[in-house]
Amino acid sequence: MSLKVLGQQALPNIPWEDRPAGAPLPLWRYSNNPVIPRDLIPTSNSIFNSAVVPFDGRFAGVFRCDDWTRRMELHVGFSADGLSWQIKPEPLEFACDDAEIGRFVYGYDPRVVHIDERYYVTWCNWYHGPTIGVGWTDDFRTFHQGENAYLPFNRNGVLFPRKISGRFAMLSRPSDNGHTAFGDIFYSASPDLRFWGRPRHVMSPVANSWQSTKVGGGPVPIETTEGWLLVYHGVLTSCNGYVYSAGVALLDLDEPWKVVARSAPYVLSPQAPYECVGDVPNVVFPCAMLCDEPTGRLAIYYGAADTVTGLAFGYIDDLVDFAKDHSL
Amino acid sequence: MSLKVLGQQALPNIPWEDRPAGAPLPLWRYSNNPVIPRDLIPTSNSIFNSAVVPFDGRFAGVFRCDDWTRRMELHVGFSADGLSWQIKPEPLEFACDDAEIGRFVYGYDPRVVHIDERYYVTWCNWYHGPTIGVGWTDDFRTFHQGENAYLPFNRNGVLFPRKISGRFAMLSRPSDNGHTAFGDIFYSASPDLRFWGRPRHVMSPVANSWQSTKVGGGPVPIETTEGWLLVYHGVLTSCNGYVYSAGVALLDLDEPWKVVARSAPYVLSPQAPYECVGDVPNVVFPCAMLCDEPTGRLAIYYGAADTVTGLAFGYIDDLVDFAKDHSL
Amino acid sequence: MSLKVLGQQALPNIPWEDRPAGAPLPLWRYSNNPVIPRDLIPTSNSIFNSAVVPFDGRFAGVFRCDDWTRRMELHVGFSADGLSWQIKPEPLEFACDDAEIGRFVYGYDPRVVHIDERYYVTWCNWYHGPTIGVGWTDDFRTFHQGENAYLPFNRNGVLFPRKISGRFAMLSRPSDNGHTAFGDIFYSASPDLRFWGRPRHVMSPVANSWQSTKVGGGPVPIETTEGWLLVYHGVLTSCNGYVYSAGVALLDLDEPWKVVARSAPYVLSPQAPYECVGDVPNVVFPCAMLCDEPTGRLAIYYGAADTVTGLAFGYIDDLVDFAKDHSL
Amino acid sequence: MSLKVLGQQALPNIPWEDRPAGAPLPLWRYSNNPVIPRDLIPTSNSIFNSAVVPFDGRFAGVFRCDDWTRRMELHVGFSADGLSWQIKPEPLEFACDDAEIGRFVYGYDPRVVHIDERYYVTWCNWYHGPTIGVGWTDDFRTFHQGENAYLPFNRNGVLFPRKISGRFAMLSRPSDNGHTAFGDIFYSASPDLRFWGRPRHVMSPVANSWQSTKVGGGPVPIETTEGWLLVYHGVLTSCNGYVYSAGVALLDLDEPWKVVARSAPYVLSPQAPYECVGDVPNVVFPCAMLCDEPTGRLAIYYGAADTVTGLAFGYIDDLVDFAKDHSL
Amino acid sequence: MSLKVLGQQALPNIPWEDRPAGAPLPLWRYSNNPVIPRDLIPTSNSIFNSAVVPFDGRFAGVFRCDDWTRRMELHVGFSADGLSWQIKPEPLEFACDDAEIGRFVYGYDPRVVHIDERYYVTWCNWYHGPTIGVGWTDDFRTFHQGENAYLPFNRNGVLFPRKISGRFAMLSRPSDNGHTAFGDIFYSASPDLRFWGRPRHVMSPVANSWQSTKVGGGPVPIETTEGWLLVYHGVLTSCNGYVYSAGVALLDLDEPWKVVARSAPYVLSPQAPYECVGDVPNVVFPCAMLCDEPTGRLAIYYGAADTVTGLAFGYIDDLVDFAKDHSL
Amino acid sequence: MSLKVLGQQALPNIPWEDRPAGAPLPLWRYSNNPVIPRDLIPTSNSIFNSAVVPFDGRFAGVFRCDDWTRRMELHVGFSADGLSWQIKPEPLEFACDDAEIGRFVYGYDPRVVHIDERYYVTWCNWYHGPTIGVGWTDDFRTFHQGENAYLPFNRNGVLFPRKISGRFAMLSRPSDNGHTAFGDIFYSASPDLRFWGRPRHVMSPVANSWQSTKVGGGPVPIETTEGWLLVYHGVLTSCNGYVYSAGVALLDLDEPWKVVARSAPYVLSPQAPYECVGDVPNVVFPCAMLCDEPTGRLAIYYGAADTVTGLAFGYIDDLVDFAKDHSL
Repeated sequence: MSLKVLGQQALPNIPWEDRPAGAPLPLWRYSNNPVIPRDLIPTSNSIFNSAVVPFDGRFAGVFRCDDWTRRMELHVGFSADGLSWQIKPEPLEFACDDAEIGRFVYGYDPRVVHIDERYYVTWCNWYHGPTIGVGWTDDFRTFHQGENAYLPFNRNGVLFPRKISGRFAMLSRPSDNGHTAFGDIFYSASPDLRFWGRPRHVMSPVANSWQSTKVGGGPVPIETTEGWLLVYHGVLTSCNGYVYSAGVALLDLDEPWKVVARSAPYVLSPQAPYECVGDVPNVVFPCAMLCDEPTGRLAIYYGAADTVTGLAFGYIDDLVDFAKDHSL
Repeated sequence: MSLKVLGQQALPNIPWEDRPAGAPLPLWRYSNNPVIPRDLIPTSNSIFNSAVVPFDGRFAGVFRCDDWTRRMELHVGFSADGLSWQIKPEPLEFACDDAEIGRFVYGYDPRVVHIDERYYVTWCNWYHGPTIGVGWTDDFRTFHQGENAYLPFNRNGVLFPRKISGRFAMLSRPSDNGHTAFGDIFYSASPDLRFWGRPRHVMSPVANSWQSTKVGGGPVPIETTEGWLLVYHGVLTSCNGYVYSAGVALLDLDEPWKVVARSAPYVLSPQAPYECVGDVPNVVFPCAMLCDEPTGRLAIYYGAADTVTGLAFGYIDDLVDFAKDHSL
Repeated sequence: MSLKVLGQQALPNIPWEDRPAGAPLPLWRYSNNPVIPRDLIPTSNSIFNSAVVPFDGRFAGVFRCDDWTRRMELHVGFSADGLSWQIKPEPLEFACDDAEIGRFVYGYDPRVVHIDERYYVTWCNWYHGPTIGVGWTDDFRTFHQGENAYLPFNRNGVLFPRKISGRFAMLSRPSDNGHTAFGDIFYSASPDLRFWGRPRHVMSPVANSWQSTKVGGGPVPIETTEGWLLVYHGVLTSCNGYVYSAGVALLDLDEPWKVVARSAPYVLSPQAPYECVGDVPNVVFPCAMLCDEPTGRLAIYYGAADTVTGLAFGYIDDLVDFAKDHSL
Repeated sequence: MSLKVLGQQALPNIPWEDRPAGAPLPLWRYSNNPVIPRDLIPTSNSIFNSAVVPFDGRFAGVFRCDDWTRRMELHVGFSADGLSWQIKPEPLEFACDDAEIGRFVYGYDPRVVHIDERYYVTWCNWYHGPTIGVGWTDDFRTFHQGENAYLPFNRNGVLFPRKISGRFAMLSRPSDNGHTAFGDIFYSASPDLRFWGRPRHVMSPVANSWQSTKVGGGPVPIETTEGWLLVYHGVLTSCNGYVYSAGVALLDLDEPWKVVARSAPYVLSPQAPYECVGDVPNVVFPCAMLCDEPTGRLAIYYGAADTVTGLAFGYIDDLVDFAKDHSL
Repeated sequence: MSLKVLGQQALPNIPWEDRPAGAPLPLWRYSNNPVIPRDLIPTSNSIFNSAVVPFDGRFAGVFRCDDWTRRMELHVGFSADGLSWQIKPEPLEFACDDAEIGRFVYGYDPRVVHIDERYYVTWCNWYHGPTIGVGWTDDFRTFHQGENAYLPFNRNGVLFPRKISGRFAMLSRPSDNGHTAFGDIFYSASPDLRFWGRPRHVMSPVANSWQSTKVGGGPVPIETTEGWLLVYHGVLTSCNGYVYSAGVALLDLDEPWKVVARSAPYVLSPQAPYECVGDVPNVVFPCAMLCDEPTGRLAIYYGAADTVTGLAFGYIDDLVDFAKDHSL
Repeated sequence: MSLKVLGQQALPNIPWEDRPAGAPLPLWRYSNNPVIPRDLIPTSNSIFNSAVVPFDGRFAGVFRCDDWTRRMELHVGFSADGLSWQIKPEPLEFACDDAEIGRFVYGYDPRVVHIDERYYVTWCNWYHGPTIGVGWTDDFRTFHQGENAYLPFNRNGVLFPRKISGRFAMLSRPSDNGHTAFGDIFYSASPDLRFWGRPRHVMSPVANSWQSTKVGGGPVPIETTEGWLLVYHGVLTSCNGYVYSAGVALLDLDEPWKVVARSAPYVLSPQAPYECVGDVPNVVFPCAMLCDEPTGRLAIYYGAADTVTGLAFGYIDDLVDFAKDHSL
């Protein structure tokens, strides 16, 4: 395979374990999972669905930390090796010029992406319902908040790591104001991160499968010569509730609303105890993906059972092949 | 009262009947309602929730005509007096540069507004769910369609009749993909009718009232020295379903997401037989409002029972006073 | 039949029309229904589910008048003939020693009963959910409010017209906080109208009938030598919502939770246009019953379509016979 | 058109009115509808969804008569002209060899068909849930009941008027045990009316149309050289409940599970007052169809608002053409 | 007890472990459960709800293997000892004369039964909704598919191991098309496995118990002198979803719709970790039962948490006694 | 802190373990949990939500023991150390003068309280729906049952340990008749444990928190100089069902419906395996609390996963401080 990864750097300190014998799927779990326990900071009920990026020779991240009231907050953290994390015990605060927009009610499920020398944070932000908050930082110390990307109700806003056709580009999953029982991934674009338009449909759920109820974006997509590699979550409704698994797709480089390949099977589903048991049983929910360009190694951070953070490993060319070889 | 109406013209042929004795509310019904019957065109099941504007010395409009399959379509119509209408039997077709966007699945609940020498049409347009379609015409003969304003799921997109702070401005009611049981009015702005941003919350339902389930914009707001006059619909959920009534509010001229006044009572509720009986019982749903500037006369077109079109009359200063005198 | 009516007086001015030919059921409608239109007072949306008693040689009543906000209020009214009513335009206000209890959020579906020289009012009163408000008056000018009878959630509290075994006695229909889809009639007793106990089950819905979803008390029961005559409402759930009809039962005089007879058929169901069309289609809901002891004439006031007030006539011995002859 | 109607006889006394001017659809209503009022028999709440056949030079039928308890019963009736009916006040009773099967809990929505010198009745029969009851009569005096056709849950069982491929053939609509929110038409066959098999799918609901929630068979199909003419009902779910309309289809003569044509528009929808107002608003539900072979005249009996029986007229070749010309 | 087991053979190689001390119920778990792990074949997400029979001196079976798309498929497997299984990695394919019927959409929850020298397979088969697929094999190499047994919607079709009154006999659980919240067991009969009739009600859920929501057949019943021994599943709805347990009943030998005894307590409920944690928590679902006639030993295969296959042991006379001694 | 505990005694044998290092919250779990396993008595499916009090130098209790039918029963038990329990295998039986009231259908979630030399038991008792049963004992051998406290529907009735303002006082949580999705705590009073009145609202759920769906009382409150210490349960609805946690509040001593302090965080949430896995995953439900007055030690018994009984420890002054320091 002649796959080339674009826009990624060497990450010699990427967390890593070699593939164990007998692993049937292109991702395998970190043997010391959960990599982040629920109580890493003194007052957290759970730490999951969090975003990690390379930063200044080590790693930085924005973490979903629910506290003992089960209030959803974002916290900043740092790590030298991506395994051992120091998360600030006080919640992240955004500076915002507009008091109405900046009033933080709750935020969750962040993603962080590096675009043009700046780190952008998107998250599910309450503004008369869930919508997509947009912020940025240069140093992971001070954070600024801009306009919400859309009217409610929306979740899982994921920015692409570069402008496409000269515009910022975002995936999101329009929803309702509850435990939404439907959900497609859509694309939209913005000249300035303030005004959004050109909505395009990307993908729908697939009947009779692990992704039959709804689908939503996961980590920031990675650019490859085969297309944008998207890891995403899909939900099945059993008689006992939702089951969240993860799949993989390739999107067209220039028109990312066109799906090039999309694997029929999941690449990760809740099977480990810390994925099956917790505040919300049977959830794996990937939010961040590190890539070491020279080796193609991937480290994927995912929320497990809405309680702890798991880590999974794989090779980018295996994921791309899997999407193509098992495409719907 | 020193109310001045802004941005309106003289409409000597505005349809009109004087206020009947004993009418307790600031609006009264046309004595010959329904002004448009369900079968005005040969193949219509119903004609309602339609938009009318002054055009070339007479009146033009875009009409929601559901056909015998109950498929929702838009049709164009004309009238010299606003009472007797000629509606084209063939559905309106939009020219659109983007085939994916221009593929018409269904459309309903149009509004038409005149901004800067052009007529703009907004409607509830299906694109993987209901969202706001945006089109325009100069002559009510050829119509052009642009990008949908938002990601799904949205309904009741109502453009303001002029730019505000240099941008197009729209009210809408984010929803879900069914018979949505919630709904607030939001404001958003666009520099170019293609990219939308600056979402702001405008108003919510009011508990224990005719507007306790959801609220959405109605006709294009009218500018006055007291603020933007907004007639809107509100929904109450009885044990036998939704009841749609109409209320009136004043929005700040420069920051229309700020509510200056909002009448606690309805100004129109389903009480006439053609409002209580039909395809959807108990619905009045205003979509268009004509104003004769010299006299302050208003003629409001509204859908009745999702079956026919009704017409109601009033004076703009009475509506403004009512909103202020009975404000929540 | 040797039926004797107890505790009733002569009401020579009871409203009355003779039975029309062909009336198949023991109740028939007033030919000039609705006896009270929706707009009898200047600001009412609807007047229904209201209570009437003989008072001072004429009639007085407490009326449910929803206003133009659809807010539910109680109003006082008077009539010389029971047909033509003067209802006060301002809502009834209760004096209450306890500010928390006396804070009126909303009230509806009143019943009025005369016990031991005092008129008692019970109604569905919001206190962190619907419960039974209890008040009294001596003159229908000043009203006093006491403790709510129960914890939420409860509706249709109907006092018996005399103490039973030395205690006040009430029927009610425990419910939830929405459009409750279940409901039985229960009995409870109180030594002082402040503390309530001895809950007893009275009757349940009946499968495959007009009363299959829920049942609740109607007018104040009338004492007879055959038992307490109870007119009550029952609800059937069609695919298009609830249908409210009225039935008749006899309860044991000393232990009114024991059902002596209960008619399988309804005695009134929504068939007239003003019962089928209105704010809530297909509702007849009896709340008050006048009895002229010498003739056995009954005049029953009932809400129709949650919009207007209807009047029906009958003879008490016919109702008692009907309950017994068609008993479940 | 060279349409030939098969298996029908001359019915000189078929009820009939000529097509009124301006009728846009191939069916038109009897000017004196409802042809059967709700109270034709002394104790009926409603008479609707009933079946009529030619019998002995006049007409006989099995009628759904709900009584004052809203209990659903079947009654027998006769008419010389199909307009004026004598319905027996006492419910139809079936003789049945098996006491468990013959225990009548409730029955509704009958169809009657003449096959091989015998009249067969099918109806929705409760046996631990709704299923298809099967009975027969030679004289409309004594009726016999056999095995129910299927396991629960099923409704709208409609027999074909002759054996197909040597077997009895039935359409039905599998359902659940409530106000089923889904429903397709299926075909099945039986060698002996006791054992059923060869289930085949016939047709599904159609999105965004009057038949988007469920579809079910109506009158007994009529054989023509173009196929079996099927009039059927379809349901749309508005925010205020179900709306029942009627459509028309042609099924393959030998393999009736193959749809030859199916009209996209409805041929009858609830628009007349007696169809829009009643125990269940907005219902037209055809159950029986008479055909005068020499003229091709059709008389269709349908339930209106689950309250009364309506009558509509048309020509069979118009219906066949309509199905073909407006086919999905 | 003089119980005799009928129609069973000696199975010297039946899997077995002796009863552990302190086991309070008549079934006990295999100490090495789950006997079949979720990943026994290379691409399975889970293996559960599977059917096993003696075959040619060893054991054969049809297994529900959901793959990584969570698609439900059937696979064939063999074992010498009933503990160590070889399951074919490719899905079972049925030969079918009718292409429409033979089109496999999905299949699950198989049962296998030996009748008159042939092995019959029944399973939940999608045909416009779930229904009962019927197939057969002589050698577990080639499989044939016949007509589906019923119209949709149905599940848990279980054939009796011999004809009763000269006809094939089947238990099934009519359902709807989702996670059905109700369900009774019914009996029906067929002369030829193609046409089905004589529906009879067998048993309903029991209020306030482990079987309060629905009940369905489990393994093929075993004939005894006391009646047919039926192990079945029952479902309770907790606030967190369904809980599936197993019970035991005796059915009349000649009229199996008559329940002779039915144990009030469960005989197996989800308590082991692999029953409580998995794709659907809290499920035990028995599908197959082996019996060694000389000793009365039983080995019951059951799905656990919709993820793995468990094995439980018991003696047939203990189960029969339990049903009788603890009968409802 | 100058906290004084009132009305408690020395309990030298209170079960106890010292606080483990690193415990972040004021309660910690017993290291040998579950203190009562699900199968402590021979026929129990589960033992949880049970009440314990000091009695005669040791401990006595009323236990919720669901049996193998999942029927909910109450059982009596004794223990010398509060850790090792002897529970009677036969259910508790109440003597009751009124046969209708005394007919035991099911009972669950008991509380026991010592008031004026008598032990009172309250529990959720079925009487045409869940309501609050009231009983008493002097010796834990014979139990008497009085009137139910309220009309249905109610749960979690918790008596205060002394009269307040001369009356018995109870907290309860009005509900509906299913898995109620709402619930506030109310106070009411009784002069005689037979008649109840003076309903007062105490506390509501808190949005966006562990207690956002409903709240209900837990153990009998403990009187302190800072107010009544109330440990209560709160419920959050995840996409996979309810999560029950425990919080702490202080109520005014004389007017206990006034909340003095209420901790925003939980003090115990389901995190241990036996709390997350079981018949109802993710439940901690405290029902009883022992207090050793001299040391301020608390031992709290709580149901875990609706399956077993857990034990947690803490100091009363820590709980009081926590409620005050983290008050909403």
